[in-house]
Amino acid sequence: MIIVKVGGSLGIDYDAVCDDLTTLVRAGHQAILVHGGSAETNRISEQLGKPPRMVTSVSGYESRYTDRETLEIFEMVYCGKMNKNIVEKLQRNGVNAVGLAGLDGRIWEGPRKSAITIIEAGKKKVLRDDFTGKVERVNLKLIHLLLDAGFTPVLTPPAISYEGEAMNVDGDRGAAMLAAALRVDRLIILSNVPGLLKDTQNEESLISDIPFERIDEYTVFAKGRMKKKMLGAVEALREGVKSVVFADARRPCPISEALAGRGTVIHGKIEPQ
Amino acid sequence: MIIVKVGGSLGIDYDAVCDDLTTLVRAGHQAILVHGGSAETNRISEQLGKPPRMVTSVSGYESRYTDRETLEIFEMVYCGKMNKNIVEKLQRNGVNAVGLAGLDGRIWEGPRKSAITIIEAGKKKVLRDDFTGKVERVNLKLIHLLLDAGFTPVLTPPAISYEGEAMNVDGDRGAAMLAAALRVDRLIILSNVPGLLKDTQNEESLISDIPFERIDEYTVFAKGRMKKKMLGAVEALREGVKSVVFADARRPCPISEALAGRGTVIHGKIEPQ
Repeated sequence: MIIVKVGGSLGIDYDAVCDDLTTLVRAGHQAILVHGGSAETNRISEQLGKPPRMVTSVSGYESRYTDRETLEIFEMVYCGKMNKNIVEKLQRNGVNAVGLAGLDGRIWEGPRKSAITIIEAGKKKVLRDDFTGKVERVNLKLIHLLLDAGFTPVLTPPAISYEGEAMNVDGDRGAAMLAAALRVDRLIILSNVPGLLKDTQNEESLISDIPFERIDEYTVFAKGRMKKKMLGAVEALREGVKSVVFADARRPCPISEALAGRGTVIHGKIEPQ
Repeated sequence: MIIVKVGGSLGIDYDAVCDDLTTLVRAGHQAILVHGGSAETNRISEQLGKPPRMVTSVSGYESRYTDRETLEIFEMVYCGKMNKNIVEKLQRNGVNAVGLAGLDGRIWEGPRKSAITIIEAGKKKVLRDDFTGKVERVNLKLIHLLLDAGFTPVLTPPAISYEGEAMNVDGDRGAAMLAAALRVDRLIILSNVPGLLKDTQNEESLISDIPFERIDEYTVFAKGRMKKKMLGAVEALREGVKSVVFADARRPCPISEALAGRGTVIHGKIEPQ
């Protein structure tokens, strides 16, 4: 089984991702595609007169401040525009795709953060009314049902809180939890960079291999959105996924390239035989 | 099994619809909720600087002119905002809902109209690049899979063309085709009016019963959006659905009220015993 997360940043070639996934599905692989939609959400938010507000938590992670109005714009873009566009591309290729949000069938469930502490202009500040949370539990019933019947799930945030509220969650970490729950060997995380770079300004500075026991030495290179991708990777590997690959979705055949080891391969724990 | 179509016009009480559906699902009924989103699509289209354009076909039916840009706004509102809001309400009530568009799993399939002839300022005009079509085939595999596993499908346009393009279809007629394919006894169509009115300005002028053989006498009362609802009803009844009820979604317990016969009940053909 192949689990691919594709980001929502500018430059990503969704045609290439869908065409490559089609080849793999036709070759008999089961696959789940998890996707984002951040750049398009920013664009639509601006157009709707509700510009995005990115906040940085006390631990240094950046996220979208998601009040109820933002959540609904988020759903429009992620679950409406992005999700149905991907489903359409796959269907046109003959792949029987089914688009889902993490709240459908409670696939992604977890606690909503009732308050988040952020750093703004050097000061701590508490935000309430933020519909953000964390995937803690993956309910596989719907996923198994679809895969066993030959459908290809296309999954996107939001997730659902234990109280039944839609909530924004990080898609990379959601994909990591899904990969762990399904006990897949490999999780592929595609974005608009070649992988983890030593120098974010230089795409030639790609780090190609990271052994599990040395991850801590490399997390220092993860900047911006890559920080959460690293966090997701570590979570997936801790839960038993054998390797996580960060690879480039601006190129043709991005999934096959990642499967061939191009990008940054983070190796999991070596289990005693 | 209960199939309910709820419109997307102003005034509809989605909380009431979801709460009532929850009661019925808890009582052991299988249910499918089909929904629209027209009023909200108009609002968001305006906000995005792409005001809606309604066109009238030569046969007198009104529809939304749906170029590719409009289709994507349509998907944002129908599949993103409206669909996920309904799924969230049902999930909060403990109903394990799964939101789907007609293109997921090719549930609603049919021909796209390559050109539509409209009447504008008294003249015929041909529009191309319109992503509108008609549900001709209902693929029940995904629906049966979900129902059999205890999920409640929440379905909305767009559908998918035979060539794999997302296309705008009329939700009432889609619901009618679904009801016919599933051979249900009753299709409930909820909107922001009490049912079919003799005088659209007077809600007291409700027509409460229409026998199948006298439908033609009553179609004259159907104005605006009600015309397509009548068309859908006739299609469903011709395909074997035993009755179609038009009822009011601005009131509490709208589904139970419709099941109790409140609204306009259109009776199907009486089969010889």
